[in-house]
Amino acid sequence: MRAIKDSVHDYIEVDGVAEALLDTRPVQRLRHIKQLSTVRLVYPSANHTRFEHSLGVYHLADRALDHLDVTGARADTVRAAALLHDIGHGPYGHQTEGIIQRRLGRHHDDVDRLLSNGVVGDVLSDHGLDPERVADLVAGEGRLGQLVAGELDVDRMDYLVRDAHHTGVPYGTIDHGRLLRALTFRDDDLVLAEGNVATAESVLVGRALMNSAVYRHHVSRIAGAMLDRAGARLLDATDLDIETFARMTDAELLAALRDCEATRDAARRVRDRDLYKRAVWTERDAVPDDVATADYEAARDFEADIADTAGVPEHAVVVDTPGEPSMPESSVRVAVNGDTRRLDEQSPLVEGMLASQRVQWRFGVYAPEEHVPEVAAAAERELGLADVGDPAE
Amino acid sequence: MRAIKDSVHDYIEVDGVAEALLDTRPVQRLRHIKQLSTVRLVYPSANHTRFEHSLGVYHLADRALDHLDVTGARADTVRAAALLHDIGHGPYGHQTEGIIQRRLGRHHDDVDRLLSNGVVGDVLSDHGLDPERVADLVAGEGRLGQLVAGELDVDRMDYLVRDAHHTGVPYGTIDHGRLLRALTFRDDDLVLAEGNVATAESVLVGRALMNSAVYRHHVSRIAGAMLDRAGARLLDATDLDIETFARMTDAELLAALRDCEATRDAARRVRDRDLYKRAVWTERDAVPDDVATADYEAARDFEADIADTAGVPEHAVVVDTPGEPSMPESSVRVAVNGDTRRLDEQSPLVEGMLASQRVQWRFGVYAPEEHVPEVAAAAERELGLADVGDPAE
Amino acid sequence: MRAIKDSVHDYIEVDGVAEALLDTRPVQRLRHIKQLSTVRLVYPSANHTRFEHSLGVYHLADRALDHLDVTGARADTVRAAALLHDIGHGPYGHQTEGIIQRRLGRHHDDVDRLLSNGVVGDVLSDHGLDPERVADLVAGEGRLGQLVAGELDVDRMDYLVRDAHHTGVPYGTIDHGRLLRALTFRDDDLVLAEGNVATAESVLVGRALMNSAVYRHHVSRIAGAMLDRAGARLLDATDLDIETFARMTDAELLAALRDCEATRDAARRVRDRDLYKRAVWTERDAVPDDVATADYEAARDFEADIADTAGVPEHAVVVDTPGEPSMPESSVRVAVNGDTRRLDEQSPLVEGMLASQRVQWRFGVYAPEEHVPEVAAAAERELGLADVGDPAE
Amino acid sequence: MRAIKDSVHDYIEVDGVAEALLDTRPVQRLRHIKQLSTVRLVYPSANHTRFEHSLGVYHLADRALDHLDVTGARADTVRAAALLHDIGHGPYGHQTEGIIQRRLGRHHDDVDRLLSNGVVGDVLSDHGLDPERVADLVAGEGRLGQLVAGELDVDRMDYLVRDAHHTGVPYGTIDHGRLLRALTFRDDDLVLAEGNVATAESVLVGRALMNSAVYRHHVSRIAGAMLDRAGARLLDATDLDIETFARMTDAELLAALRDCEATRDAARRVRDRDLYKRAVWTERDAVPDDVATADYEAARDFEADIADTAGVPEHAVVVDTPGEPSMPESSVRVAVNGDTRRLDEQSPLVEGMLASQRVQWRFGVYAPEEHVPEVAAAAERELGLADVGDPAE
Repeated sequence: MRAIKDSVHDYIEVDGVAEALLDTRPVQRLRHIKQLSTVRLVYPSANHTRFEHSLGVYHLADRALDHLDVTGARADTVRAAALLHDIGHGPYGHQTEGIIQRRLGRHHDDVDRLLSNGVVGDVLSDHGLDPERVADLVAGEGRLGQLVAGELDVDRMDYLVRDAHHTGVPYGTIDHGRLLRALTFRDDDLVLAEGNVATAESVLVGRALMNSAVYRHHVSRIAGAMLDRAGARLLDATDLDIETFARMTDAELLAALRDCEATRDAARRVRDRDLYKRAVWTERDAVPDDVATADYEAARDFEADIADTAGVPEHAVVVDTPGEPSMPESSVRVAVNGDTRRLDEQSPLVEGMLASQRVQWRFGVYAPEEHVPEVAAAAERELGLADVGDPAE
Repeated sequence: MRAIKDSVHDYIEVDGVAEALLDTRPVQRLRHIKQLSTVRLVYPSANHTRFEHSLGVYHLADRALDHLDVTGARADTVRAAALLHDIGHGPYGHQTEGIIQRRLGRHHDDVDRLLSNGVVGDVLSDHGLDPERVADLVAGEGRLGQLVAGELDVDRMDYLVRDAHHTGVPYGTIDHGRLLRALTFRDDDLVLAEGNVATAESVLVGRALMNSAVYRHHVSRIAGAMLDRAGARLLDATDLDIETFARMTDAELLAALRDCEATRDAARRVRDRDLYKRAVWTERDAVPDDVATADYEAARDFEADIADTAGVPEHAVVVDTPGEPSMPESSVRVAVNGDTRRLDEQSPLVEGMLASQRVQWRFGVYAPEEHVPEVAAAAERELGLADVGDPAE
Repeated sequence: MRAIKDSVHDYIEVDGVAEALLDTRPVQRLRHIKQLSTVRLVYPSANHTRFEHSLGVYHLADRALDHLDVTGARADTVRAAALLHDIGHGPYGHQTEGIIQRRLGRHHDDVDRLLSNGVVGDVLSDHGLDPERVADLVAGEGRLGQLVAGELDVDRMDYLVRDAHHTGVPYGTIDHGRLLRALTFRDDDLVLAEGNVATAESVLVGRALMNSAVYRHHVSRIAGAMLDRAGARLLDATDLDIETFARMTDAELLAALRDCEATRDAARRVRDRDLYKRAVWTERDAVPDDVATADYEAARDFEADIADTAGVPEHAVVVDTPGEPSMPESSVRVAVNGDTRRLDEQSPLVEGMLASQRVQWRFGVYAPEEHVPEVAAAAERELGLADVGDPAE
Repeated sequence: MRAIKDSVHDYIEVDGVAEALLDTRPVQRLRHIKQLSTVRLVYPSANHTRFEHSLGVYHLADRALDHLDVTGARADTVRAAALLHDIGHGPYGHQTEGIIQRRLGRHHDDVDRLLSNGVVGDVLSDHGLDPERVADLVAGEGRLGQLVAGELDVDRMDYLVRDAHHTGVPYGTIDHGRLLRALTFRDDDLVLAEGNVATAESVLVGRALMNSAVYRHHVSRIAGAMLDRAGARLLDATDLDIETFARMTDAELLAALRDCEATRDAARRVRDRDLYKRAVWTERDAVPDDVATADYEAARDFEADIADTAGVPEHAVVVDTPGEPSMPESSVRVAVNGDTRRLDEQSPLVEGMLASQRVQWRFGVYAPEEHVPEVAAAAERELGLADVGDPAE
């Protein structure tokens, strides 16, 4: 048994299959993937990694299992899934999700292959666990999968608190002690026990406020969009294959971008925080529907058009359309007066929060500082944007 | 100059008129008034007092004035008002507000008399400050009064964070550093600068979540309602005058209740946490309008009727109708795209939060544990409540 | 089972005999005894009580028992002792220890009588526990008594961290998670496992630094000495018996002092923080041995002599001789290379820390501000002090 | 002006020359140098960088200057030095100090060249500051240099608290608010004001306890020693020049080690935490003087001898002799009774702490797990070590 000191949960005790998994390379690799990728360019203290986050998720899963009285191999399977839930992430986490999904057709929760083959699969088998069953839990399947990847999962409970601790932004500091104690099964649904409507609301608002202040901060979005475009150029310009790309660390991707002529400038800009600026930054109402809901290919076409009109190189324009705000916490189930109700049925706050997220939604077009004026003008014309004034916050 | 260590703001530097005020009896008395009165019966760590809260409000006012570039006697007046803003509170703070207001016709913000006469007035005058002007600020009047008692006041910024620190409930941990830096005047309105809609929302939701989990916890409400009724009996049964009552400390009130035959039992119950239990605890829909909006006299009449029907002494029934949930933060003004907008105009979250508070609204009838069944039955009949089942959470 | 939110340990789960004990009056009384008594006059946030401290000690005991694999009735007995360990304290805790011990011959750890009779004894017996056995543990007797009252007890682990949280002085923030995990039995000795010399040192230095900054701060010592003298006058001047005195709460003692002519002024001074000042405050070298080691009677005689010489009333002089600094942590046992060694055998730090505490030792004589000069002069002459200049820090 | 959110100091306000320096490449590079280098292999949350540490040092310098009433260009020079004080660090900070100093003859505090040439020098000159003067302050020279690099410097105040926050080990949580307020000049010496002997002691013990638990943890020492040896092999095996080496980031060094045949294994071991183990780990008494005080060349010779005897490759043996424990805080000056005294003159704790650090001193020989037995045996014979049993803690 090892007791590992954590900045958020104090000591985390790891033994059995979890201890063995810890020493495998796919798990050690998570030490080199930052939890909040480009957010550190806004909040310089936010350098925590998916490694300690995974330990934290393991720890909360362990406590939840204890509370729910789940033991034996079923519990070990959940613990393993909690520890392994992020090994499918590419370099810079969510920022390369798009590329990987487009080119590999695989989401980071789809860890079947990673678990069945190689050292992780071996460790699982050695401890009598079924890798496929672990992969199902990581994908949120089955009764206990809700604990690993659902609206009430321990992933969320860890990252909100951890991101608050490391950014210094307090909004994520939810009461995970209360959440864990409120977890209970009603038939096969994981729900919060009676008296916890506000507890459920607190998770919803905690994440929404972290979205505004942290996760969707424009500086992080700019850097992320630049990495996405640079990643695509890197894969097109070199013989790097997407499987290798997907298994890189943050630093390995940055080094690869630096070593490739087509992406050297992007690498330098991300490393030295010399990012593109906002040429356009506008509310939903000012954006035509086909632009607001543009998919990746359409967005790239817009970039080409804008660059052409503005007379700048294509890679000098980045069009960034965030998807619709989602609130998985809306469907958290809470026991109320003996019934089980979805949070959005019970709490009028959910609709208010969703509406508020829509108000905060912003469409962005980014360009090197020196090209901002012409790119802004070109974008407004090409995309048919309403005039939106100065994009500076 | 004194530097006083505070558990929330680290060192608070006090000098000039504030240092002199600190040593007066009306300010020292605040050491003996707990910030959260009966909440400590739910959250045992919540023993902080209005004294350190007042220091904290003074400290945040000082920082805000610095940021807003207000100096000289105007600033000193605000600092004095910040330090003195709570000296009008009676014993057990908000729990005796009703009695004092009914019998004395004075709200705790109405500190005119306290400031003009006696040692506090002398200290203010000695430092060249006008007690009346300080009293106006405490009442929220004037341009700078918004900083002391308004939707964006430093009172709120301190108590949310302090109550979170001492209860252990994290929801109140707002980002006061950001709020202070965002304060600015637009004409005579104190507003939040551009880019702070989510900052304003965070205060709103912070307080709403603290309402649910802390400020309106049923155990605290029960103890508070018992104190209110006992206070009235004490004033009726003895020759204690209301002015003296209003200047007592928590402990002095408890001692007076203990020494009076008519209130001895209430004193014991509060001291030893042997409180009345919920005979009724029900949502808004189940309560007829005249009951839900009953004023004090009407509520007392209901108590008499219920007691009569149930065959228990009158003081064995407490009817507790909380007012409508208020959200002063709704009218916080925020700069958005060059305009100044009220938060409830800009953020759909406000309406959601208000609606959520209404859903969480509960009407209560309390009684000694042994009388709960008959009081519950009598209350349902007398008040015309819909059948609401078991009041236990 | 109840889960009680604590500002230090988050949720504390209480059930069985502990839950039943919680509702007894002797335990509820601890809500009204402040953990740090007069320290709040220096650190205004330090209003925490022996009630939440007792819950914290219970919680850490529970975790230690789990770690040490102690279960069943033996564990329940330890848990009960942990929760009850402070019920022997008088009002203002350590500040009335002297009076109570002198007049009643009983230390606060001697809880035999309190446990055998009355409601606490009944609850223990109802749960099949032997009150005498619990009392032995509170007194530190027996193998498991070391956990409740020894050099490695959970009492210390809780109060250091809790006092740090509430004063804001960080020195007490020890690593109790590590300490708990390091506890182990070697024969019948509770020791720290291999690799924990620095862990043991950290407790020693944590407490020593809290001594300097908090526990022995001169303002708290002055108020404490004033309470001791006032308590004696109260017992002499009224028919209050010492048993009743010993069971009072802080507020009840203050009220009794206020209601007695001989102690009214002391009550006012403590309540409004209008304390005596230091007439003498001097290092060990400047104090003759018979003065430095004077017992209570001798100190009172010195007070009379000084008052006489200074021409002031006897109660206007308080002579305060702290005992020798003790460091019970010196005898903590730690496993080192297979042996068990006492910390003071293993770590040269212990001797340094003891010497440092001796250097910080101060002898004080206190008087009302207006009498400081004559009392200082009289004390120097009467006590034969070396000239020590201005006592202001 | 920018307000940057920091996990330790909340908002840090940066403007003027500091804001301009922030965007230079040498300062942005510090985002890619971890503050605690290999300590993250023990404490997985410790991923904070020298970038946010430098911001923190800047912030504390700013507060200290304000307190000391230093303004204008002198203050700007100190602020610049605070922000720049770590730009001389190589990749992995202290772990490559040895190599760089041996091959380049330059310590990380020797930033003359870095400041005079290039963009940093330009920014300083543009703001009317003398790069040479800034470099002097970084080297601790001059009256105000004490604030940047002395026994009472703000560097120490930041790193102790920051390292505690990010490792989770509480010992470093000193009271920097009190330290800052206690700073004062006596003639040209920066000293702590009267009444702060314990404050000075607290810094000393804080750092000593962090040494034991964090900075000198054997796992971090092993990884550090492996990096040192690998760095030397890399420089010998490739045409990488030492100036380029010294300006690398952590990730760039790891990539370079991975890409070189002679160091590939070391890179993998550090990245995947598959480190050498302790073959020898022994107290000072068991080590002959010439071994304990061996310089780098001598240690490398020992390694060759041991490898030869053990029949393993030379790079499979690492001999690690930590220097004598140093305690710069010993010479902190404190005002005591009107004099200025060195802490080690005033406080017997200093000698105790030094002795305690000597007791905790350990000499280590490390080897791949499979070679531990033969390397241990060879080391004992070659170095003449007393038999010291099992090196496992």
